[in-house]
Amino acid sequence: MNSMKNRQIQLANRPEGKPQESDFELVEVHVPELQDGEILIQTLYLSVDPGMRNMMKDQKSYTSPFALHEVLTGRSVGKVVESKNKNFEIGDTVFERLGWQDYSVSNGKNTKKIDIDIAPASTYLGVLGVPGLVAYFGLTEIALPKRGETVVVSGASGAVGMNVGQLAKIMGCRVVGIAGSDEKNRYLTQELGFDVTINYKTTEDMKTALEEACPDGIDIYFDNVGGEITDAALQLINYQARVVISGQTSQYNEEKSDVGPRFLNQLVTKSAMIKGFVVYDYEAKNDEAIKQLARWLRSGELKYKENVVDGLENAPQAFMDLFESKSFGKQVVKVSE
Amino acid sequence: MNSMKNRQIQLANRPEGKPQESDFELVEVHVPELQDGEILIQTLYLSVDPGMRNMMKDQKSYTSPFALHEVLTGRSVGKVVESKNKNFEIGDTVFERLGWQDYSVSNGKNTKKIDIDIAPASTYLGVLGVPGLVAYFGLTEIALPKRGETVVVSGASGAVGMNVGQLAKIMGCRVVGIAGSDEKNRYLTQELGFDVTINYKTTEDMKTALEEACPDGIDIYFDNVGGEITDAALQLINYQARVVISGQTSQYNEEKSDVGPRFLNQLVTKSAMIKGFVVYDYEAKNDEAIKQLARWLRSGELKYKENVVDGLENAPQAFMDLFESKSFGKQVVKVSE
Repeated sequence: MNSMKNRQIQLANRPEGKPQESDFELVEVHVPELQDGEILIQTLYLSVDPGMRNMMKDQKSYTSPFALHEVLTGRSVGKVVESKNKNFEIGDTVFERLGWQDYSVSNGKNTKKIDIDIAPASTYLGVLGVPGLVAYFGLTEIALPKRGETVVVSGASGAVGMNVGQLAKIMGCRVVGIAGSDEKNRYLTQELGFDVTINYKTTEDMKTALEEACPDGIDIYFDNVGGEITDAALQLINYQARVVISGQTSQYNEEKSDVGPRFLNQLVTKSAMIKGFVVYDYEAKNDEAIKQLARWLRSGELKYKENVVDGLENAPQAFMDLFESKSFGKQVVKVSE
Repeated sequence: MNSMKNRQIQLANRPEGKPQESDFELVEVHVPELQDGEILIQTLYLSVDPGMRNMMKDQKSYTSPFALHEVLTGRSVGKVVESKNKNFEIGDTVFERLGWQDYSVSNGKNTKKIDIDIAPASTYLGVLGVPGLVAYFGLTEIALPKRGETVVVSGASGAVGMNVGQLAKIMGCRVVGIAGSDEKNRYLTQELGFDVTINYKTTEDMKTALEEACPDGIDIYFDNVGGEITDAALQLINYQARVVISGQTSQYNEEKSDVGPRFLNQLVTKSAMIKGFVVYDYEAKNDEAIKQLARWLRSGELKYKENVVDGLENAPQAFMDLFESKSFGKQVVKVSE
């Protein structure tokens, strides 16, 4: 087994601004021999996430930065193809933060078996994975929506945004989505039940567009993008509004802090809250959340959309596309069948 | 009684930038005759608060803006000198939002009797009034301090800031205060028990100063001022930090929104919260809070400092001084004995 070839994508350079192809390198190595207690996982799908851009910077965060000239890592689904660990059998389907590579060796400690009878393996990177959990926890732990409230979602056609809008609808809210094309917006209203959408690329005055879309103001703003869209939304928040920050994709490629209008006084006069979070904050509730999301999935109340990019070698492009608003739905890379 | 003269301070102009003397006008009117159910209150002390600057702007907030050429209003303590209301007797000491004038007529609905055996009347504008309550609710309802945490307070020598620091000490925290003079800072450490202070006027690099003052980072940032001090503090917040926004005095005189570095991404990576509030949000808990503050006052754990400006005619200057960091402690105007 240790003569098996293993392709991996390494970080060649720390990107400056938007990531480029030259920041990544496809390298061929050998699969190391398994030690006692280890398993060999063949990657089925790997997830590309905007948040990985932060980890490409040479700065500490809630996770360590990626090392240069080492394999990138990310949330993945794989199949156990060899096992020296009594908890795993060949054929088990598992979720773990693995390398961007064909095969990964794991000690099994952070490997989680997943049930592909409930939903296809790839959904554990999307609607039943972190993007689903981010939407679920952001709403149920932070925003606490009340029936009839107005919820605005930025990055609405992204992996998190689609779930936020649908879950807010399930919870009885009026949902306004902001996305980057009319095609995406049609999908959000016609397929996912969003009430109103705004195309931020063709809208000249976001504040006016939001005012029209939200005649009763904004009770909950679920922010995935930041920047000028957020500047506009914050001007329209209601008394005791909750602003949930799950990501700031518009900012990840900035090398220095961007500037924007100060708004903290607005939080005082509106008694409003802004809360950022990472999904790991609520890890203890993961199983319960996944069960609930799976129930809604089976009942048809919750739909999902994936954009599957074929081939490990295309993972860098799939990642870069996240910042060009080319992706639509959860972006995953299919590495093997 | 209706021939009694009554001096009042009116808003002559909406200030542009910092308020000036010409924005105010002293006018002499007559006290109207009392109707059934009304009381006549002689003003003892009136409170000048930075937050009133917001109400001088022609914009809606949680309160209506002040009208031009009408008497300004603010939190006041007074004595009932005439009563046609069975709930009040001549001689009662009361708290209400009254006019900046010698005498106010009230229907008694929002008039609250206060107990001046517990503490002097003026303290109901300070440590037992809104500034005390803002500190108390900001900590007990939002920040939820844990023993050993580091609390940073901006505007530390102001009416709210002094209470925040002392209450955080009572709650077992390490307290770092930021104020505008060495004299103020000496008072904060020597008299009020703050652990460390920073003089923002003589500090060239606020971030470095805060790093030195907070070797374990910032768990709670209680912000009264905003602007560059807040920019620096937000860079040093810890995982699950709580930022309480009680005011933004550095911004009140800005006609247009100032700009500053965007920081929402920092809230994501730190799972941090920012919450603005006004004291009325927690009105139902006022009595309980005042009792607790009075207990600490009697035990000597909580001290207060007032700057008493004598004479109604000096109220505009007392208000303007709030923005020149001339005031030290709670700024009140003594209108009569």
